Amino acid sequence: MNFCSQCAHPLVFEVPAGDERPRYLCKACGAIHYQNPKIIAGTLPIWQDKVLLCKRAIAPRQGYWTLPAGFMENGETTKAAAARETWEEALAEVNVGELYTLTSLPRIGQVQMLYLAELIEPTFSAGPESLEVELFSEDEIPWDELAFVTISNALRHYFDDRRNNHFPTRHIDLVD
Amino acid sequence: MNFCSQCAHPLVFEVPAGDERPRYLCKACGAIHYQNPKIIAGTLPIWQDKVLLCKRAIAPRQGYWTLPAGFMENGETTKAAAARETWEEALAEVNVGELYTLTSLPRIGQVQMLYLAELIEPTFSAGPESLEVELFSEDEIPWDELAFVTISNALRHYFDDRRNNHFPTRHIDLVD
Repeated sequence: MNFCSQCAHPLVFEVPAGDERPRYLCKACGAIHYQNPKIIAGTLPIWQDKVLLCKRAIAPRQGYWTLPAGFMENGETTKAAAARETWEEALAEVNVGELYTLTSLPRIGQVQMLYLAELIEPTFSAGPESLEVELFSEDEIPWDELAFVTISNALRHYFDDRRNNHFPTRHIDLVD
Repeated sequence: MNFCSQCAHPLVFEVPAGDERPRYLCKACGAIHYQNPKIIAGTLPIWQDKVLLCKRAIAPRQGYWTLPAGFMENGETTKAAAARETWEEALAEVNVGELYTLTSLPRIGQVQMLYLAELIEPTFSAGPESLEVELFSEDEIPWDELAFVTISNALRHYFDDRRNNHFPTRHIDLVD
């Protein structure tokens, strides 16, 4: 961040009066440009005993498998964002259920929310950000080819929880 | 948003290739300036049978009572943000417990997360964004002087749930 988005003046990075953290400040118009964590919303889409995964067509972790998820947009709810991302990445319609994992990722300024979801029918295909989309049973999950630790966490919890038919929300802080 | 924060060129607001929503675009350097929802993190701080509220010293809703909460910062977890806001607004130290309300506010691009919290001791005072900080029992809550519907929701659920000693997370979409 180099220039003020309001007036185009060069920015400085310092602690504003009354604040405790450095911010991008404009000494010309007085604007403070805050940067805050972003929400990643997605689903763990289920059909019978299988889970839908997407092979990523884009960086990061291109070619690895993930659950459909992406940046929440202004103007939508967390559940609507989760359903939209599932449609965009897997062309799959889902009924979004309970929040399943809520993961803070402070190092990268993200909070990820994955919801359990039921496929409305077993119809799906690769959206523009996916190379392939496929249903996997537990013994077919490509554990060594998953894109992110948040995804393997959610899948491990899911298959464990399924044995007890009890799916509590997991609250996870990935601090490293 | 008028100018590119990377190169200071004037921005346009249009749908980028391969996207479905208008964004602030720089035709000079190619930067896309996304705008995403922000997370408000806070607590419902409890001491014995009372809840700690703060009278707001700042807009919006100056002079109305609220639970301590504010914008989550990069580099922290949701629980750490909730504890920090409680310290900043009420100079109160808390043990942050379970997530209690998770509210989507799509009209204003916010997701609010309020955690149940226990005051470590009954020591508190007004931080710079508060006029007063006070413990209230159920029959003392100033229901007509609460700052936000998310706060009255959380307090109503809390006093209801206390009768059953069961405090499930409430997932709320405030769509209007």
